[in-house]
Amino acid sequence: MKSQPHWICRKCCFKDDLFRKYHYRCPRCGSPLDIEYEWRWEPRGVGLNRYSSMLPLEPLKPLGEASTPLITREYRGLRLWFKLEYMNPSGSFKDRGSSLALSHAYMLGYRRVVEDSSGNTGLSVSLYSRAYGLRATIVVPRHAPRGKKDLIRIFGAGIIEAETRGHATQIAMELAGEENTYYVAHLWNPLYPIAYKTIAYEAYEQGFHGDAVVVPIGSGGLTLGLYHGFKDLYEHGLIDQIPLFIGVQGVSAKPVYTALYGESSVSGDSMLADGILVENPPRLMELVRVFKETGGCVVVIDNKDVVYGLKKLIEMGFLVEPTSATVIPGIEKALESIGLDYVREVLVPLTGSGLKMTDLLVKLIRL
Amino acid sequence: MKSQPHWICRKCCFKDDLFRKYHYRCPRCGSPLDIEYEWRWEPRGVGLNRYSSMLPLEPLKPLGEASTPLITREYRGLRLWFKLEYMNPSGSFKDRGSSLALSHAYMLGYRRVVEDSSGNTGLSVSLYSRAYGLRATIVVPRHAPRGKKDLIRIFGAGIIEAETRGHATQIAMELAGEENTYYVAHLWNPLYPIAYKTIAYEAYEQGFHGDAVVVPIGSGGLTLGLYHGFKDLYEHGLIDQIPLFIGVQGVSAKPVYTALYGESSVSGDSMLADGILVENPPRLMELVRVFKETGGCVVVIDNKDVVYGLKKLIEMGFLVEPTSATVIPGIEKALESIGLDYVREVLVPLTGSGLKMTDLLVKLIRL
Repeated sequence: MKSQPHWICRKCCFKDDLFRKYHYRCPRCGSPLDIEYEWRWEPRGVGLNRYSSMLPLEPLKPLGEASTPLITREYRGLRLWFKLEYMNPSGSFKDRGSSLALSHAYMLGYRRVVEDSSGNTGLSVSLYSRAYGLRATIVVPRHAPRGKKDLIRIFGAGIIEAETRGHATQIAMELAGEENTYYVAHLWNPLYPIAYKTIAYEAYEQGFHGDAVVVPIGSGGLTLGLYHGFKDLYEHGLIDQIPLFIGVQGVSAKPVYTALYGESSVSGDSMLADGILVENPPRLMELVRVFKETGGCVVVIDNKDVVYGLKKLIEMGFLVEPTSATVIPGIEKALESIGLDYVREVLVPLTGSGLKMTDLLVKLIRL
Repeated sequence: MKSQPHWICRKCCFKDDLFRKYHYRCPRCGSPLDIEYEWRWEPRGVGLNRYSSMLPLEPLKPLGEASTPLITREYRGLRLWFKLEYMNPSGSFKDRGSSLALSHAYMLGYRRVVEDSSGNTGLSVSLYSRAYGLRATIVVPRHAPRGKKDLIRIFGAGIIEAETRGHATQIAMELAGEENTYYVAHLWNPLYPIAYKTIAYEAYEQGFHGDAVVVPIGSGGLTLGLYHGFKDLYEHGLIDQIPLFIGVQGVSAKPVYTALYGESSVSGDSMLADGILVENPPRLMELVRVFKETGGCVVVIDNKDVVYGLKKLIEMGFLVEPTSATVIPGIEKALESIGLDYVREVLVPLTGSGLKMTDLLVKLIRL
């Protein structure tokens, strides 16, 4: 008999049916939850739904997410495979996760969703909430860019302004206690990393069978998703080995770097890469394992590097947001500092669109 | 022997090799040119290059254009097939045309491109020029939105500000006379409508085999492209009939409407739909034929209708620019005024992204 998808806590062994109740983290011990489910490799159709057989549930109202282009460029002796995740409906890879999470909220009969986010996730959750007919409330730090707040409002989501990012999370958790409310909690919700596995599936089907992946690390969802995606392909015998992972963090928040290499004297400012400014990612030890197990590394970058990356990407015809541009200095630093002689083919997800932040980009590129 | 693709003037029979020299219009009589070439239906791969066998030349540096999602929604007893053209790299369907036109400029060895546009085409040309390493100059009317000018600058294109839209064209035509300069001229350049044929090819391959197409009419490139795309499919025996065309124009500029039905007393303002504000489309008579031959019609809309369309589309999860929203009131008016009882399946291209104009959208939706 096929077992139903279920929540599982790796720490205290809590278990629950995925379709009985939503838990954004373990109700017994507070740890991040995983989802166990049976999968088979039967890609069919397009978009996220192409991989329904590899996911714990089906996205019921796709808005054109996933099936993003993969474009190759020669760069410093490497072949880079750019995965254009900024070409998702709300302009970021988060749409894969929101498509799955909002489908889950809808299937469980929730009426309202709440999320704390200053940026791409807030917009993505607003978009999918609207499509599913769910009422969304997004708690944003007061200093969040007006453009992104405007976009959230356009989709009819309610906005609550908090003093700080931490305060925003606190308010969201309070609202989460209310009846019929699904707290999306993308830093915790395992449906986000599970949805990101499809980026690896797509890259594989689009011809990437390379040595390495470079990924900006914020909450770590993208890293974990890509890693488990390649692991699925490996376990299914479709690839010979899991690529090595090069992680990129900003000097202003580098918990994975520190966990791997200890405290360092690296200082400076990386606030431009605000999308990866996460001090305490819930799945820190899982993240550390990815870089250790694949023989990869984590490098740190600062604002100067971000601007350098933006310029290089624009030269190649890719308009991304600052956080997404960290991959370029990330690759260069990884090559310089640790030497990766055998690495030739690198998957480079470009996570967020530059169309949403013209004002800032013009200033940074200084034209 | 296979004949080479060549320019052809339908009026004075001027002919020239497509790869000898660029003509943005007939050098003998000034009429719009067409391109004659042999094609065969051999779709292969993804993006615009999937249809290389159906095009007069190959896009050499794709940036992820084309292969856009097709999403269905039930609406007022119809099944609408939304083709998400706003999910192209620079956020509009123009990227298909620019990909082909800039590839042409590059193959012919031009070093510089010039274009007059206040909006999506200017941005699209800047993006592809950058990818091809060509220097772009965009002539914009002084009143063009700053956000779009900023985006053009980000791609490193030069901007010249003209007093009016007409003045911009005049300046572009003067620059076009300079050596090594390719005047993109999307209102005239047949590579734009030819590239848009692929929207019909994709829709067909994605499952649309319906009765009608609704399309906003500016210069008419999209209308002509879709029409000839479906005509190709028909001539190849892949579809039984060419869908009927419902065209949408704004009350502020309605040359096709007037050519079909004569001067009317319809008045009002449709400046919000600035992307279809074209008083004198070069291919007017060709456009008129499309609506006559397919048994379709042209309707006119105003600003109020645009806002209504925007709201309806956002409810469905589609964030588009005002011009793109004209299709919704367009369909409703066509149903009301002339009755289209047998129409059930309608292709609805959504042409441009709302991400580029948050400020305006917030005001229009009035949240």
